[in-house]
Amino acid sequence: MKINFKHISIIGVGLMGGSLAMALKAKGFKGKITGIGRNRKNLTKAKRLGIIDDYTTEFNEGVKNADLIVLAVPVGQFEAILKNIRQNLKNGATVTDVGSVKAQIVKRLEPLMPKDVYFVGAHPIAGKECSGVTCASANLYQNARCIITPCPHTNNAALKKVVTLWKTVGAKTMLMNPEEHDVIFSAVSHLPHVVAYALVNGILKVDEAILHHGGKGLRDMTRIAKSPAELWRDICSHNKKNILRSLKMFSSSISNITKLIERSDWQGLEKEFIKAREARQPLESD
Amino acid sequence: MKINFKHISIIGVGLMGGSLAMALKAKGFKGKITGIGRNRKNLTKAKRLGIIDDYTTEFNEGVKNADLIVLAVPVGQFEAILKNIRQNLKNGATVTDVGSVKAQIVKRLEPLMPKDVYFVGAHPIAGKECSGVTCASANLYQNARCIITPCPHTNNAALKKVVTLWKTVGAKTMLMNPEEHDVIFSAVSHLPHVVAYALVNGILKVDEAILHHGGKGLRDMTRIAKSPAELWRDICSHNKKNILRSLKMFSSSISNITKLIERSDWQGLEKEFIKAREARQPLESD
Repeated sequence: MKINFKHISIIGVGLMGGSLAMALKAKGFKGKITGIGRNRKNLTKAKRLGIIDDYTTEFNEGVKNADLIVLAVPVGQFEAILKNIRQNLKNGATVTDVGSVKAQIVKRLEPLMPKDVYFVGAHPIAGKECSGVTCASANLYQNARCIITPCPHTNNAALKKVVTLWKTVGAKTMLMNPEEHDVIFSAVSHLPHVVAYALVNGILKVDEAILHHGGKGLRDMTRIAKSPAELWRDICSHNKKNILRSLKMFSSSISNITKLIERSDWQGLEKEFIKAREARQPLESD
Repeated sequence: MKINFKHISIIGVGLMGGSLAMALKAKGFKGKITGIGRNRKNLTKAKRLGIIDDYTTEFNEGVKNADLIVLAVPVGQFEAILKNIRQNLKNGATVTDVGSVKAQIVKRLEPLMPKDVYFVGAHPIAGKECSGVTCASANLYQNARCIITPCPHTNNAALKKVVTLWKTVGAKTMLMNPEEHDVIFSAVSHLPHVVAYALVNGILKVDEAILHHGGKGLRDMTRIAKSPAELWRDICSHNKKNILRSLKMFSSSISNITKLIERSDWQGLEKEFIKAREARQPLESD
Protein backbone atom coordinates (compact mmCIF):
# COMPACT_ATOMS: atom_id res chain seq x y z
CA MET A 1 0.00 0.00 0.00
CA LYS A 2 1.40 3.34 -1.01
CA ILE A 3 0.06 6.86 -0.66
CA ASN A 4 -1.18 7.97 -4.08
CA PHE A 5 -2.12 11.53 -3.20
CA LYS A 6 0.10 14.55 -3.14
CA HIS A 7 -1.18 17.27 -0.90
CA ILE A 8 -2.27 16.87 2.71
CA SER A 9 -3.67 19.74 4.73
CA ILE A 10 -3.73 19.37 8.49
CA ILE A 11 -6.09 21.62 10.42
CA GLY A 12 -4.62 21.99 13.89
CA VAL A 13 -0.86 21.42 14.07
CA GLY A 14 -0.60 20.28 17.69
CA LEU A 15 0.46 16.97 19.25
CA MET A 16 -1.74 14.78 17.02
CA GLY A 17 -1.61 16.78 13.76
CA GLY A 18 2.08 17.64 14.13
CA SER A 19 3.01 14.03 14.86
CA LEU A 20 1.08 12.87 11.80
CA ALA A 21 3.03 15.32 9.60
CA MET A 22 6.37 14.29 11.11
CA ALA A 23 5.58 10.60 10.76
CA LEU A 24 4.61 11.04 7.10
CA LYS A 25 7.90 12.78 6.35
CA ALA A 26 9.85 10.17 8.34
CA LYS A 27 8.19 7.42 6.30
CA GLY A 28 9.16 9.08 3.03
CA PHE A 29 6.02 10.96 1.98
CA LYS A 30 7.16 13.25 -0.82
CA GLY A 31 4.02 15.34 -1.24
CA LYS A 32 3.21 18.67 0.34
CA ILE A 33 1.92 19.11 3.90
CA THR A 34 0.10 22.34 4.66
CA GLY A 35 -0.58 23.36 8.24
CA ILE A 36 -3.77 25.30 8.91
CA GLY A 37 -4.72 27.02 12.14
CA ARG A 38 -5.68 30.23 13.87
CA ASN A 39 -2.44 30.64 15.79
CA ARG A 40 0.23 32.03 13.43
CA LYS A 41 2.97 31.72 16.07
CA ASN A 42 2.30 28.01 16.42
CA LEU A 43 2.30 27.54 12.65
CA THR A 44 5.61 29.39 12.12
CA LYS A 45 7.12 27.23 14.84
CA ALA A 46 5.89 24.09 13.07
CA LYS A 47 7.35 25.37 9.78
CA ARG A 48 10.66 26.22 11.45
CA LEU A 49 10.78 22.71 12.94
CA GLY A 50 10.33 21.29 9.45
CA ILE A 51 7.08 19.62 10.44
CA ILE A 52 5.00 21.29 7.71
CA ASP A 53 5.97 22.62 4.28
CA ASP A 54 3.81 25.72 4.40
CA TYR A 55 0.99 27.16 6.43
CA THR A 56 -1.91 29.53 6.39
CA THR A 57 -4.47 30.98 8.78
CA GLU A 58 -6.92 31.20 5.85
CA PHE A 59 -8.74 27.89 6.10
CA ASN A 60 -10.29 28.11 2.61
CA GLU A 61 -6.95 28.91 1.05
CA GLY A 62 -5.31 26.02 2.87
CA VAL A 63 -7.75 23.32 1.80
CA LYS A 64 -8.52 24.22 -1.79
CA ASN A 65 -5.77 22.13 -3.41
CA ALA A 66 -5.62 19.36 -0.81
CA ASP A 67 -6.29 15.71 -1.65
CA LEU A 68 -6.67 14.88 2.02
CA ILE A 69 -7.79 17.17 4.84
CA VAL A 70 -7.15 16.05 8.42
CA LEU A 71 -9.11 17.65 11.26
CA ALA A 72 -6.83 17.67 14.30
CA VAL A 73 -8.47 20.29 16.53
CA PRO A 74 -10.86 19.57 19.46
CA VAL A 75 -13.99 17.82 18.08
CA GLY A 76 -16.23 20.70 19.13
CA GLN A 77 -14.74 22.81 16.32
CA PHE A 78 -15.23 20.34 13.46
CA GLU A 79 -18.71 21.36 12.35
CA ALA A 80 -18.04 25.10 12.19
CA ILE A 81 -14.79 24.51 10.29
CA LEU A 82 -16.50 22.21 7.79
CA LYS A 83 -19.29 24.71 7.19
CA ASN A 84 -16.65 27.30 6.48
CA ILE A 85 -14.44 25.27 4.11
CA ARG A 86 -16.93 22.97 2.34
CA GLN A 87 -17.33 25.12 -0.76
CA ASN A 88 -13.62 25.13 -1.32
CA LEU A 89 -12.95 21.40 -1.10
CA LYS A 90 -11.47 19.91 -4.25
CA ASN A 91 -13.39 17.34 -6.24
CA GLY A 92 -12.32 13.89 -5.07
CA ALA A 93 -10.81 15.17 -1.82
CA THR A 94 -11.20 13.17 1.39
CA VAL A 95 -11.78 14.63 4.84
CA THR A 96 -10.72 12.69 7.92
CA ASP A 97 -10.07 13.44 11.59
CA VAL A 98 -8.24 12.22 14.69
CA GLY A 99 -11.08 12.77 17.17
CA SER A 100 -11.80 10.49 20.13
CA VAL A 101 -15.57 10.41 19.45
CA LYS A 102 -17.09 9.23 16.24
CA ALA A 103 -20.87 8.73 15.95
CA GLN A 104 -21.99 12.37 16.26
CA ILE A 105 -19.05 13.58 14.20
CA VAL A 106 -19.82 11.23 11.33
CA LYS A 107 -23.53 12.06 11.52
CA ARG A 108 -22.96 15.81 11.47
CA LEU A 109 -20.10 16.03 8.98
CA GLU A 110 -21.25 13.60 6.29
CA PRO A 111 -24.26 15.72 5.20
CA LEU A 112 -21.91 18.71 4.87
CA MET A 113 -19.73 17.01 2.27
CA PRO A 114 -20.02 18.35 -1.29
CA LYS A 115 -20.48 15.90 -4.18
CA ASP A 116 -17.41 13.71 -4.72
CA VAL A 117 -15.93 14.57 -1.33
CA TYR A 118 -16.10 11.96 1.43
CA PHE A 119 -15.63 12.02 5.16
CA VAL A 120 -14.02 9.02 6.84
CA GLY A 121 -13.69 9.17 10.62
CA ALA A 122 -10.55 7.92 12.34
CA HIS A 123 -9.37 7.66 15.94
CA PRO A 124 -5.70 6.86 16.46
CA ILE A 125 -5.25 5.45 19.99
CA ALA A 126 -2.16 7.41 20.88
CA GLY A 127 -1.34 10.31 23.09
CA LYS A 128 1.16 11.87 25.39
CA GLU A 129 1.08 13.72 28.67
CA CYS A 130 1.96 16.98 26.93
CA SER A 131 0.18 18.89 24.22
CA GLY A 132 1.11 21.24 21.40
CA VAL A 133 3.42 21.02 18.40
CA THR A 134 6.62 21.02 20.49
CA CYS A 135 5.39 17.73 21.92
CA ALA A 136 4.83 16.11 18.51
CA SER A 137 7.02 13.18 17.49
CA ALA A 138 7.52 11.08 14.39
CA ASN A 139 6.92 7.81 16.24
CA LEU A 140 3.69 8.64 18.09
CA TYR A 141 1.62 6.37 15.85
CA GLN A 142 4.17 3.58 15.42
CA ASN A 143 2.40 0.35 16.46
CA ALA A 144 -0.55 2.34 17.79
CA ARG A 145 -4.02 1.14 16.95
CA CYS A 146 -6.17 3.36 14.76
CA ILE A 147 -9.92 2.80 14.63
CA ILE A 148 -11.46 3.82 11.29
CA THR A 149 -15.23 4.20 11.18
CA PRO A 150 -16.66 4.02 7.65
CA CYS A 151 -20.43 4.00 7.04
CA PRO A 152 -22.35 1.76 4.64
CA HIS A 153 -22.26 4.49 1.97
CA THR A 154 -18.62 5.56 2.47
CA ASN A 155 -16.78 5.71 -0.82
CA ASN A 156 -14.27 2.90 -1.09
CA ALA A 157 -11.46 4.98 -2.54
CA ALA A 158 -11.78 7.46 0.32
CA LEU A 159 -11.70 4.67 2.89
CA LYS A 160 -8.60 3.20 1.24
CA LYS A 161 -6.91 6.61 1.33
CA VAL A 162 -7.42 6.92 5.08
CA VAL A 163 -6.40 3.32 5.81
CA THR A 164 -3.23 3.86 3.73
CA LEU A 165 -2.48 7.09 5.58
CA TRP A 166 -2.48 5.35 8.95
CA LYS A 167 -0.71 2.22 7.80
CA THR A 168 2.00 4.43 6.32
CA VAL A 169 2.73 6.02 9.70
CA GLY A 170 2.96 2.61 11.36
CA ALA A 171 -0.49 2.28 12.92
CA LYS A 172 -2.51 -0.92 13.06
CA THR A 173 -5.87 -0.05 11.51
CA MET A 174 -9.19 -1.59 12.50
CA LEU A 175 -12.63 -0.89 11.03
CA MET A 176 -15.54 -0.37 13.40
CA ASN A 177 -18.93 1.26 13.19
CA PRO A 178 -19.03 4.72 14.81
CA GLU A 179 -21.70 3.82 17.40
CA GLU A 180 -19.83 0.74 18.57
CA HIS A 181 -16.65 2.82 18.78
CA ASP A 182 -18.33 5.35 21.05
CA VAL A 183 -19.74 2.73 23.44
CA ILE A 184 -16.35 1.05 23.80
CA PHE A 185 -14.27 4.22 24.13
CA SER A 186 -16.70 5.85 26.53
CA ALA A 187 -15.63 3.06 28.89
CA VAL A 188 -11.96 2.41 28.14
CA SER A 189 -10.87 5.98 27.41
CA HIS A 190 -13.38 8.71 28.22
CA LEU A 191 -14.32 7.27 31.63
CA PRO A 192 -10.67 6.98 32.79
CA HIS A 193 -10.06 10.60 31.83
CA VAL A 194 -13.10 11.82 33.74
CA VAL A 195 -12.09 9.64 36.72
CA ALA A 196 -8.57 11.09 36.71
CA TYR A 197 -9.94 14.64 36.94
CA ALA A 198 -12.43 13.56 39.64
CA LEU A 199 -9.69 11.81 41.62
CA VAL A 200 -7.62 14.99 41.87
CA ASN A 201 -10.68 17.01 42.86
CA GLY A 202 -11.75 14.37 45.39
CA ILE A 203 -8.34 14.54 47.07
CA LEU A 204 -8.65 18.35 47.19
CA LYS A 205 -11.94 17.87 49.03
CA VAL A 206 -10.19 15.76 51.69
CA ASP A 207 -7.50 18.43 52.11
CA GLU A 208 -6.41 21.12 49.68
CA ALA A 209 -2.77 20.92 50.74
CA ILE A 210 -1.85 17.23 50.58
CA LEU A 211 -1.56 16.37 46.89
CA HIS A 212 2.23 16.73 46.91
CA HIS A 213 2.43 13.74 49.27
CA GLY A 214 1.31 11.50 46.42
CA GLY A 215 3.79 9.02 44.94
CA LYS A 216 4.36 7.49 41.53
CA GLY A 217 1.00 5.67 41.68
CA LEU A 218 -0.97 8.90 41.99
CA ARG A 219 1.19 10.64 39.40
CA ASP A 220 0.58 7.89 36.85
CA MET A 221 -3.12 7.67 37.66
CA THR A 222 -3.68 11.38 37.14
CA ARG A 223 -1.26 11.90 34.28
CA ILE A 224 -4.13 12.01 31.80
CA ALA A 225 -5.67 14.87 33.79
CA LYS A 226 -2.95 16.96 32.12
CA SER A 227 -4.80 16.70 28.81
CA PRO A 228 -6.31 20.00 27.63
CA ALA A 229 -9.60 20.57 29.45
CA GLU A 230 -11.25 21.90 26.28
CA LEU A 231 -10.57 18.66 24.45
CA TRP A 232 -12.23 16.53 27.13
CA ARG A 233 -15.12 18.94 27.58
CA ASP A 234 -15.85 18.49 23.84
CA ILE A 235 -15.51 14.72 24.04
CA CYS A 236 -17.97 14.62 26.96
CA SER A 237 -20.48 16.75 25.07
CA HIS A 238 -20.15 14.61 21.93
CA ASN A 239 -20.49 11.27 23.68
CA LYS A 240 -22.75 12.31 26.54
CA LYS A 241 -25.11 9.32 26.61
CA ASN A 242 -22.39 6.66 26.57
CA ILE A 243 -20.15 8.49 29.04
CA LEU A 244 -23.06 8.88 31.47
CA ARG A 245 -23.73 5.17 31.21
CA SER A 246 -20.07 4.33 31.82
CA LEU A 247 -20.01 6.72 34.79
CA LYS A 248 -23.06 4.95 36.18
CA MET A 249 -21.35 1.55 35.95
CA PHE A 250 -18.21 2.97 37.56
CA SER A 251 -20.18 4.62 40.38
CA SER A 252 -21.81 1.29 41.06
CA SER A 253 -18.35 -0.33 41.35
CA ILE A 254 -17.25 2.41 43.74
CA SER A 255 -20.39 2.04 45.84
CA ASN A 256 -19.96 -1.72 45.86
CA ILE A 257 -16.40 -1.42 47.21
CA THR A 258 -17.52 1.25 49.70
CA LYS A 259 -20.19 -1.08 51.07
CA LEU A 260 -17.74 -3.97 51.42
CA ILE A 261 -15.40 -1.73 53.45
CA GLU A 262 -18.29 -0.39 55.56
CA ARG A 263 -19.38 -3.94 56.37
CA SER A 264 -15.76 -5.00 57.00
CA ASP A 265 -16.29 -7.73 54.42
CA TRP A 266 -12.55 -8.16 53.78
CA GLN A 267 -12.94 -11.44 51.94
CA GLY A 268 -15.47 -9.86 49.58
CA LEU A 269 -13.17 -6.87 49.10
CA GLU A 270 -10.21 -9.07 48.27
CA LYS A 271 -12.33 -10.92 45.69
CA GLU A 272 -13.26 -7.58 44.09
CA PHE A 273 -9.57 -6.58 43.92
CA ILE A 274 -8.54 -9.95 42.47
CA LYS A 275 -11.24 -9.68 39.80
CA ALA A 276 -9.84 -6.31 38.67
CA ARG A 277 -6.25 -7.48 38.84
CA GLU A 278 -6.93 -10.45 36.59
CA ALA A 279 -9.19 -8.61 34.17
CA ARG A 280 -6.61 -5.96 33.32
CA GLN A 281 -4.05 -8.51 32.09
CA PRO A 282 -4.80 -7.79 28.40
CA LEU A 283 -3.56 -4.22 28.88
CA GLU A 284 -0.06 -5.52 29.52
CA SER A 285 0.36 -7.29 26.21
CA ASP A 286 0.46 -4.12 24.14
CA MET B 1 25.05 9.47 59.85
CA LYS B 2 26.28 5.92 59.81
CA ILE B 3 24.59 2.66 60.68
CA ASN B 4 25.93 1.54 64.07
CA PHE B 5 24.15 -1.79 64.30
CA LYS B 6 25.27 -5.10 62.88
CA HIS B 7 22.42 -7.47 62.31
CA ILE B 8 19.21 -6.73 60.45
CA SER B 9 16.42 -9.26 60.13
CA ILE B 10 13.83 -8.68 57.45
CA ILE B 11 10.52 -10.47 57.83
CA GLY B 12 9.09 -10.86 54.32
CA VAL B 13 11.71 -10.79 51.55
CA GLY B 14 9.54 -9.49 48.70
CA LEU B 15 9.67 -6.27 46.68
CA MET B 16 9.97 -3.94 49.68
CA GLY B 17 12.04 -6.10 52.04
CA GLY B 18 14.26 -7.45 49.26
CA SER B 19 14.92 -3.96 47.90
CA LEU B 20 15.86 -2.73 51.37
CA ALA B 21 18.41 -5.54 51.75
CA MET B 22 19.85 -4.90 48.28
CA ALA B 23 20.05 -1.15 48.89
CA LEU B 24 21.85 -1.66 52.21
CA LYS B 25 24.45 -3.87 50.55
CA ALA B 26 24.82 -1.46 47.63
CA LYS B 27 25.45 1.37 50.10
CA GLY B 28 28.16 -0.59 51.87
CA PHE B 29 26.40 -2.09 54.90
CA LYS B 30 28.83 -4.68 56.22
CA GLY B 31 26.62 -6.33 58.84
CA LYS B 32 24.46 -9.41 58.44
CA ILE B 33 21.05 -9.46 56.81
CA THR B 34 18.79 -12.36 57.71
CA GLY B 35 15.68 -13.07 55.66
CA ILE B 36 12.69 -14.51 57.50
CA GLY B 37 9.54 -15.90 55.92
CA ARG B 38 7.23 -18.86 55.53
CA ASN B 39 8.12 -19.60 51.93
CA ARG B 40 11.45 -21.46 51.83
CA LYS B 41 11.58 -21.38 48.02
CA ASN B 42 11.40 -17.60 48.03
CA LEU B 43 14.08 -17.36 50.71
CA THR B 44 16.52 -19.67 48.90
CA LYS B 45 16.01 -17.58 45.77
CA ALA B 46 16.81 -14.41 47.73
CA LYS B 47 19.94 -16.06 49.15
CA ARG B 48 21.00 -17.26 45.68
CA LEU B 49 20.55 -13.73 44.35
CA GLY B 50 22.85 -12.47 47.11
CA ILE B 51 20.09 -10.29 48.54
CA ILE B 52 20.27 -11.82 52.04
CA ASP B 53 23.15 -13.46 53.91
CA ASP B 54 21.13 -16.22 55.50
CA TYR B 55 17.51 -17.15 56.07
CA THR B 56 15.16 -19.11 58.25
CA THR B 57 11.50 -20.03 58.38
CA GLU B 58 11.76 -20.10 62.20
CA PHE B 59 10.76 -16.56 63.10
CA ASN B 60 12.04 -16.75 66.69
CA GLU B 61 15.36 -18.10 65.55
CA GLY B 62 15.68 -15.36 62.95
CA VAL B 63 15.05 -12.41 65.25
CA LYS B 64 16.86 -13.39 68.43
CA ASN B 65 20.22 -11.81 67.56
CA ALA B 66 18.92 -8.93 65.43
CA ASP B 67 19.53 -5.28 66.31
CA LEU B 68 16.84 -4.19 63.89
CA ILE B 69 13.79 -6.15 62.77
CA VAL B 70 11.91 -4.92 59.67
CA LEU B 71 8.33 -6.08 59.09
CA ALA B 72 7.85 -6.23 55.32
CA VAL B 73 4.79 -8.48 55.00
CA PRO B 74 1.17 -7.28 54.51
CA VAL B 75 0.14 -5.19 57.57
CA GLY B 76 -2.57 -7.68 58.53
CA GLN B 77 0.14 -10.13 59.63
CA PHE B 78 2.11 -7.77 61.89
CA GLU B 79 0.27 -8.38 65.16
CA ALA B 80 0.34 -12.18 65.01
CA ILE B 81 4.04 -12.15 64.10
CA LEU B 82 4.89 -9.77 66.95
CA LYS B 83 2.96 -11.89 69.46
CA ASN B 84 4.97 -14.86 68.26
CA ILE B 85 8.45 -13.30 68.33
CA ARG B 86 8.25 -10.78 71.19
CA GLN B 87 9.80 -13.03 73.84
CA ASN B 88 12.83 -13.57 71.65
CA LEU B 89 13.67 -9.97 70.84
CA LYS B 90 17.10 -8.88 72.01
CA ASN B 91 17.47 -6.19 74.61
CA GLY B 92 17.89 -2.85 72.85
CA ALA B 93 16.52 -4.13 69.53
CA THR B 94 14.32 -1.92 67.39
CA VAL B 95 11.32 -3.09 65.39
CA THR B 96 10.20 -1.14 62.34
CA ASP B 97 8.01 -1.76 59.29
CA VAL B 98 7.34 -0.64 55.72
CA GLY B 99 3.54 -0.66 55.94
CA SER B 100 1.28 1.86 54.19
CA VAL B 101 -0.90 2.43 57.28
CA LYS B 102 0.42 3.61 60.58
CA ALA B 103 -2.00 4.61 63.39
CA GLN B 104 -3.51 1.19 64.12
CA ILE B 105 -0.17 -0.53 63.62
CA VAL B 106 1.59 1.74 66.10
CA LYS B 107 -1.28 1.42 68.57
CA ARG B 108 -1.37 -2.37 68.42
CA LEU B 109 2.37 -3.10 68.24
CA GLU B 110 3.74 -0.70 70.84
CA PRO B 111 2.07 -2.44 73.82
CA LEU B 112 3.55 -5.74 72.61
CA MET B 113 7.12 -4.50 72.87
CA PRO B 114 9.20 -5.99 75.71
CA LYS B 115 11.20 -3.68 77.97
CA ASP B 116 14.06 -1.95 76.13
CA VAL B 117 12.65 -2.81 72.70
CA TYR B 118 10.99 -0.07 70.69
CA PHE B 119 8.71 0.03 67.69
CA VAL B 120 9.13 2.88 65.21
CA GLY B 121 6.71 2.90 62.27
CA ALA B 122 7.91 3.80 58.78
CA HIS B 123 6.30 4.11 55.36
CA PRO B 124 8.65 4.42 52.41
CA ILE B 125 6.73 5.96 49.47
CA ALA B 126 8.02 3.64 46.81
CA GLY B 127 6.67 0.78 44.82
CA LYS B 128 6.60 -0.98 41.51
CA GLU B 129 4.03 -2.61 39.32
CA CYS B 130 5.40 -6.05 40.12
CA SER B 131 5.77 -7.85 43.42
CA GLY B 132 8.06 -10.47 44.92
CA VAL B 133 11.80 -10.74 45.45
CA THR B 134 12.60 -11.05 41.72
CA CYS B 135 11.20 -7.55 41.38
CA ALA B 136 13.40 -6.06 44.11
CA SER B 137 16.06 -3.53 43.17
CA ALA B 138 18.85 -1.69 44.94
CA ASN B 139 17.60 1.74 43.85
CA LEU B 140 13.92 1.46 44.81
CA TYR B 141 14.32 3.87 47.73
CA GLN B 142 16.82 6.26 46.13
CA ASN B 143 15.28 9.75 46.43
CA ALA B 144 11.99 8.27 47.64
CA ARG B 145 10.29 9.88 50.58
CA CYS B 146 9.97 7.85 53.76
CA ILE B 147 7.49 8.91 56.43
CA ILE B 148 8.56 7.92 59.94
CA THR B 149 5.91 8.04 62.66
CA PRO B 150 7.39 8.22 66.16
CA CYS B 151 5.14 8.71 69.21
CA PRO B 152 5.76 11.06 72.15
CA HIS B 153 7.27 8.21 74.16
CA THR B 154 9.36 6.68 71.35
CA ASN B 155 12.94 6.09 72.45
CA ASN B 156 15.28 8.52 70.73
CA ALA B 157 17.99 5.99 69.95
CA ALA B 158 15.42 3.73 68.27
CA LEU B 159 14.09 6.63 66.19
CA LYS B 160 17.62 7.58 65.16
CA LYS B 161 18.30 3.98 64.10
CA VAL B 162 15.29 3.95 61.78
CA VAL B 163 16.02 7.42 60.35
CA THR B 164 19.63 6.33 59.68
CA LEU B 165 18.43 3.13 58.01
CA TRP B 166 16.33 5.04 55.48
CA LYS B 167 18.81 7.84 54.90
CA THR B 168 21.45 5.20 54.22
CA VAL B 169 19.41 3.70 51.37
CA GLY B 170 18.90 7.14 49.82
CA ALA B 171 15.42 8.03 51.08
CA LYS B 172 14.33 11.49 52.22
CA THR B 173 12.91 10.99 55.70
CA MET B 174 10.09 13.02 57.21
CA LEU B 175 8.57 12.72 60.69
CA MET B 176 4.78 12.74 61.02
CA ASN B 177 2.31 11.56 63.61
CA PRO B 178 0.63 8.27 62.70
CA GLU B 179 -2.93 9.67 62.65
CA GLU B 180 -1.99 12.52 60.33
CA HIS B 181 -0.17 10.04 58.10
CA ASP B 182 -3.29 7.90 57.78
CA VAL B 183 -5.55 10.82 56.88
CA ILE B 184 -3.17 12.04 54.17
CA PHE B 185 -2.37 8.64 52.68
CA SER B 186 -5.98 7.49 52.72
CA ALA B 187 -6.47 10.24 50.13
CA VAL B 188 -3.25 10.33 48.08
CA SER B 189 -2.46 6.62 48.06
CA HIS B 190 -5.18 4.30 49.38
CA LEU B 191 -8.00 6.03 47.47
CA PRO B 192 -6.19 5.90 44.09
CA HIS B 193 -5.59 2.18 44.57
CA VAL B 194 -9.23 1.50 45.37
CA VAL B 195 -10.28 3.68 42.41
CA ALA B 196 -7.96 1.75 40.06
CA TYR B 197 -9.58 -1.55 41.05
CA ALA B 198 -13.07 0.01 40.75
CA LEU B 199 -12.26 1.47 37.34
CA VAL B 200 -11.40 -1.93 35.91
CA ASN B 201 -14.54 -3.47 37.43
CA GLY B 202 -16.68 -0.56 36.20
CA ILE B 203 -15.45 -1.11 32.62
CA LEU B 204 -16.26 -4.82 32.98
CA LYS B 205 -19.81 -3.81 33.89
CA VAL B 206 -20.12 -1.82 30.63
CA ASP B 207 -18.86 -4.78 28.62
CA GLU B 208 -16.76 -7.74 29.77
CA ALA B 209 -14.91 -7.98 26.49
CA ILE B 210 -13.63 -4.48 25.76
CA LEU B 211 -10.76 -3.86 28.18
CA HIS B 212 -8.14 -4.74 25.55
CA HIS B 213 -9.21 -1.68 23.55
CA GLY B 214 -7.72 0.52 26.27
CA GLY B 215 -4.61 2.56 25.46
CA LYS B 216 -1.64 3.81 27.45
CA GLY B 217 -3.87 6.07 29.57
CA LEU B 218 -5.93 3.17 30.88
CA ARG B 219 -2.85 1.01 31.34
CA ASP B 220 -1.14 3.67 33.46
CA MET B 221 -4.28 4.44 35.42
CA THR B 222 -4.85 0.83 36.38
CA ARG B 223 -1.23 -0.18 36.79
CA ILE B 224 -1.55 -0.03 40.57
CA ALA B 225 -4.41 -2.54 40.36
CA LYS B 226 -1.63 -5.08 39.79
CA SER B 227 -0.61 -4.75 43.45
CA PRO B 228 -1.31 -7.87 45.52
CA ALA B 229 -5.00 -7.89 46.52
CA GLU B 230 -4.15 -9.17 50.01
CA LEU B 231 -1.95 -6.13 50.69
CA TRP B 232 -4.68 -3.66 49.79
CA ARG B 233 -7.37 -5.62 51.59
CA ASP B 234 -5.26 -5.29 54.76
CA ILE B 235 -4.62 -1.58 54.19
CA CYS B 236 -8.37 -0.99 53.78
CA SER B 237 -9.15 -2.86 56.98
CA HIS B 238 -6.44 -0.97 58.91
CA ASN B 239 -7.43 2.48 57.70
CA LYS B 240 -11.16 1.92 57.28
CA LYS B 241 -12.48 5.20 58.67
CA ASN B 242 -10.15 7.47 56.68
CA ILE B 243 -10.52 5.49 53.46
CA LEU B 244 -14.32 5.62 53.74
CA ARG B 245 -14.11 9.37 54.19
CA SER B 246 -11.81 9.75 51.16
CA LEU B 247 -14.15 7.54 49.12
CA LYS B 248 -17.04 9.79 50.13
CA MET B 249 -15.20 12.90 48.92
CA PHE B 250 -14.27 11.16 45.67
CA SER B 251 -17.85 9.95 45.09
CA SER B 252 -19.02 13.50 45.55
CA SER B 253 -16.54 14.65 42.85
CA ILE B 254 -17.80 11.93 40.52
CA SER B 255 -21.42 12.83 41.15
CA ASN B 256 -20.60 16.51 40.64
CA ILE B 257 -19.06 15.78 37.22
CA THR B 258 -21.93 13.44 36.35
CA LYS B 259 -24.46 16.19 37.09
CA LEU B 260 -22.57 18.73 34.96
CA ILE B 261 -22.62 16.30 32.02
CA GLU B 262 -26.32 15.48 32.57
CA ARG B 263 -27.15 19.19 32.54
CA SER B 264 -24.88 19.78 29.52
CA ASP B 265 -23.09 22.42 31.59
CA TRP B 266 -19.94 22.30 29.45
CA GLN B 267 -18.49 25.47 30.85
CA GLY B 268 -18.87 24.15 34.40
CA LEU B 269 -17.32 20.83 33.32
CA GLU B 270 -14.33 22.56 31.73
CA LYS B 271 -13.79 24.53 34.97
CA GLU B 272 -13.81 21.27 36.94
CA PHE B 273 -11.23 19.77 34.57
CA ILE B 274 -9.03 22.89 34.72
CA LYS B 275 -9.13 22.83 38.52
CA ALA B 276 -7.83 19.25 38.55
CA ARG B 277 -5.24 19.92 35.86
CA GLU B 278 -3.75 22.82 37.80
CA ALA B 279 -3.93 21.18 41.22
CA ARG B 280 -1.89 18.15 40.18
CA GLN B 281 1.13 20.25 39.14
CA PRO B 282 3.06 19.44 42.38
CA LEU B 283 3.10 15.77 41.37
CA GLU B 284 5.34 16.60 38.40
CA SER B 285 8.17 18.09 40.41
CA ASP B 286 9.21 14.82 42.01
